[in-house]
Amino acid sequence: MSSAVNPLRDAQDRRLPRIAGPSGLVIFGVTGDLSRKKLMPAVYDLANRGLLPPGFSLVGFARRDWEHEDFAQVVHDAVKEHSRTPFREEVWQQLAEGMRFVPGVFDDDEAFATLKSTIEELDKSRGTGGNFAFYLSVPPKFFPTVVAQLEKHGLNRGEGESWRRAVIEKPFGHDLASAQELNRTVHGVFRASEVFRIDHYLGKETVQNILALRFANTMFEPLWNRSYVDHVQITMAEDIGIGGRAGYYDGIGAARDVIQNHLLQLLALTAMEEPSSFDAKALVAEKLKVLNAVQLPKDLARHTVRGQYAAGWQGGKKVPGYLDEEGIDPQSVTDTYAAIKLGIDNRRWAGVPFYLRTGKRLGRRVTEIAVVFQRAPHSPFGATDTQELGQNALVIRVQPDEGVTIRFGSKVPGTQMEIRDVTMDFAYGESFTESSPEAYERLILDVLLGDANLFPRHQEVERSWEILDPVERHWARSGRPEQYPAGTWGPGAADEMLARDGRSWRRP
Amino acid sequence: MSSAVNPLRDAQDRRLPRIAGPSGLVIFGVTGDLSRKKLMPAVYDLANRGLLPPGFSLVGFARRDWEHEDFAQVVHDAVKEHSRTPFREEVWQQLAEGMRFVPGVFDDDEAFATLKSTIEELDKSRGTGGNFAFYLSVPPKFFPTVVAQLEKHGLNRGEGESWRRAVIEKPFGHDLASAQELNRTVHGVFRASEVFRIDHYLGKETVQNILALRFANTMFEPLWNRSYVDHVQITMAEDIGIGGRAGYYDGIGAARDVIQNHLLQLLALTAMEEPSSFDAKALVAEKLKVLNAVQLPKDLARHTVRGQYAAGWQGGKKVPGYLDEEGIDPQSVTDTYAAIKLGIDNRRWAGVPFYLRTGKRLGRRVTEIAVVFQRAPHSPFGATDTQELGQNALVIRVQPDEGVTIRFGSKVPGTQMEIRDVTMDFAYGESFTESSPEAYERLILDVLLGDANLFPRHQEVERSWEILDPVERHWARSGRPEQYPAGTWGPGAADEMLARDGRSWRRP
Repeated sequence: MSSAVNPLRDAQDRRLPRIAGPSGLVIFGVTGDLSRKKLMPAVYDLANRGLLPPGFSLVGFARRDWEHEDFAQVVHDAVKEHSRTPFREEVWQQLAEGMRFVPGVFDDDEAFATLKSTIEELDKSRGTGGNFAFYLSVPPKFFPTVVAQLEKHGLNRGEGESWRRAVIEKPFGHDLASAQELNRTVHGVFRASEVFRIDHYLGKETVQNILALRFANTMFEPLWNRSYVDHVQITMAEDIGIGGRAGYYDGIGAARDVIQNHLLQLLALTAMEEPSSFDAKALVAEKLKVLNAVQLPKDLARHTVRGQYAAGWQGGKKVPGYLDEEGIDPQSVTDTYAAIKLGIDNRRWAGVPFYLRTGKRLGRRVTEIAVVFQRAPHSPFGATDTQELGQNALVIRVQPDEGVTIRFGSKVPGTQMEIRDVTMDFAYGESFTESSPEAYERLILDVLLGDANLFPRHQEVERSWEILDPVERHWARSGRPEQYPAGTWGPGAADEMLARDGRSWRRP
Repeated sequence: MSSAVNPLRDAQDRRLPRIAGPSGLVIFGVTGDLSRKKLMPAVYDLANRGLLPPGFSLVGFARRDWEHEDFAQVVHDAVKEHSRTPFREEVWQQLAEGMRFVPGVFDDDEAFATLKSTIEELDKSRGTGGNFAFYLSVPPKFFPTVVAQLEKHGLNRGEGESWRRAVIEKPFGHDLASAQELNRTVHGVFRASEVFRIDHYLGKETVQNILALRFANTMFEPLWNRSYVDHVQITMAEDIGIGGRAGYYDGIGAARDVIQNHLLQLLALTAMEEPSSFDAKALVAEKLKVLNAVQLPKDLARHTVRGQYAAGWQGGKKVPGYLDEEGIDPQSVTDTYAAIKLGIDNRRWAGVPFYLRTGKRLGRRVTEIAVVFQRAPHSPFGATDTQELGQNALVIRVQPDEGVTIRFGSKVPGTQMEIRDVTMDFAYGESFTESSPEAYERLILDVLLGDANLFPRHQEVERSWEILDPVERHWARSGRPEQYPAGTWGPGAADEMLARDGRSWRRP
């Protein structure tokens, strides 16, 4: 018998593929958008890539009068519409055989009893081995009920070696107190190591690449400190408005929705020390250490800015202002733009400001981390030679054009010395033939593998609220956010905030 | 009256253009290849770019029975064929009016008297102000005669404020003793500051950009030392053979032809400390300092390699070996490939080898400086995660695809951590609309401006011979060079030389 060779892998490749062992996934809130657009396609794509076990099973739980077949059909349609990999009938068939649906509401004991027997049946018929993850794709107000039911029906503990895990989605509270309460609720039923908080940004290739870029290379880390870095800008800009999310968004706002989780996680990965290894404990320890060193400036009026989009033009179309969006209170003071200056009080970063900003209805959809370097300490060139030279920068482009850009000065062709900014680029799309897995693929696989690397721990979540809470309290006392026209780069106060520091925002 | 605005220049641009003052150029050896292909087109291109004074004059000196008009016609044809900028009749006419021809041989006093009266006539008719550069585009054996004649006829000194300069082309001798003798000859007649040695490599944009890259930026210099650099490779590879240069090349060889001048100059620019300014004195001082710190390894048999191309295939054609080339002694031991390992004994570079190599009939035409960095001192990643990761490198591509490449490790898209080399690129051609001036344009303009920045001084030339001489003496005692098939990357001994150090040559 000839040994099996996977033609897609290099012959030299001695890595073991990360394939999930016997297991299943239960999704609460299976009729929601997230489930249909992200979770179901991700499960199929993982199966198609050969990363799920043959007996993998998917259980939907929702208030619908569906049979197993109806549920399978819903998944089928979602996969056809949203999956990244080609549809293959044989993969689908094998997956579909492990699909079950449990109808019910969250406080319905009978439904949870059915869920339990369904899991037992799958253990027998599909060999899932009692290993199940419960994905709570439901509004946070239902978390206590669902986890209480899981406990009541003994679903939070597997038998023997088998595992049970809980997956929860943001928002993880809306301030420190509510986050602590939520964590108490979940940790009363699941062990800390069994709880996986999804911040889908951490599943993105470019975000994981921050670690590779910094710690697998020699070239960058020597520059990555206060001796060479002038400041760091972390931006998540959206061009869309709130869309259909009025109910969720109003009263929450940009800072709670994006800065507290995504941007502070990006800051942590950008600023942290090298972990001793990449197991979750070592990684969390470093992220937490740097988050603990984060300090708000004293004068929040000068170093934070919030805004609210007014009517304007975007993509050649007139778009309404936030206060005119359907479902928004015309008196709302919710921020759709937020910018905050932070310091990091440690030896590496003392004195280097980190500017975080996010907003809706901005000029362009872009997420990036820009490490902006100081000017050269001395220039042997004439002042006019370098008049068009800016500051060196290393930009990690998280989305949409995933990659890395370095901006530096180069001589302009000609018979005199004239130095101007140029860029060099690395683009994921051009450099790799491998397709990027969707963030949810990576994260669901990690849940099934019990790999907690890319999931923020409760201490990080709480510390992040601790950082943001004083800003929110300050804003709550500060009247109305400044209006900015849709399609621009936010309120003028944000530009002034950087101008006072002698800096300016990138226009990415 | 509205003020004149040059639409090609940025309104913010306060630089003064570098335009030559009243002056003329005398070319000895005006019928040669260099003159026709490089010097004449460069003069026209400079005029066309507006960088020459209106009265600029060009005097040809050669053993030809030409009238001024015949000479102008020769220049006209050379310009039409080889100039970089478009032919404009009005520029040509103005330039052609200042063209003169002096027929004669180098020991002909009458001819030099005519040259003198021609210059005086041009001072009156064209306003050249007595400022003339003498370009000795002649074989070195004629240098003593020409400079003696210039002195004898009082041409080496202008009157009052006017200047006289001598431009000489390599070879600047074939060893230290002959170089010293040559320098004595020239410096007996011209002051050191009046002698301009052309190393056309220093006129290349990418070579000048080494200075901009290193000293106008913040990002590179912190990495530019023994703490982070593993080694440096400087390569000038040609795909052609010796062509019609048998008479010049045989007995000289690759090391004298390329390493002694071009590659040691590239090494000096790559390795030198930051000069206090970019005036010629400060620059030469730094280059000389680092050249003085260059040390040959003790065991030349292990750390130098020479080769000679054998017959082989290049560009799909069968090509002859060096010993079968027309005009080559079949017993010749001349090196057409040379590789040398050098050390630099100073605080910045101690222990970092600089590998220099050059050769004819190699795989590809390419000149580059590759700064290869050490591996990261510690990898928090698993060993298999980084098995396909090489060493970080910064490559200055001198020719033909001028630019800069950085090689670094990036995460391969996928659900596991796998890190592989990728590159990011800056290409001159894509980043600038400005066209690169030919090296000779830049250098001739510099001669007329008296700007000696890009010209090696006699101390540098002599020090470079001092470095190379022991290698040549070693080779002279070492039998025959190793043959390598045309179209390959040189002799096997060169690969072994690096393999012994645990390294390998780049295949650019």
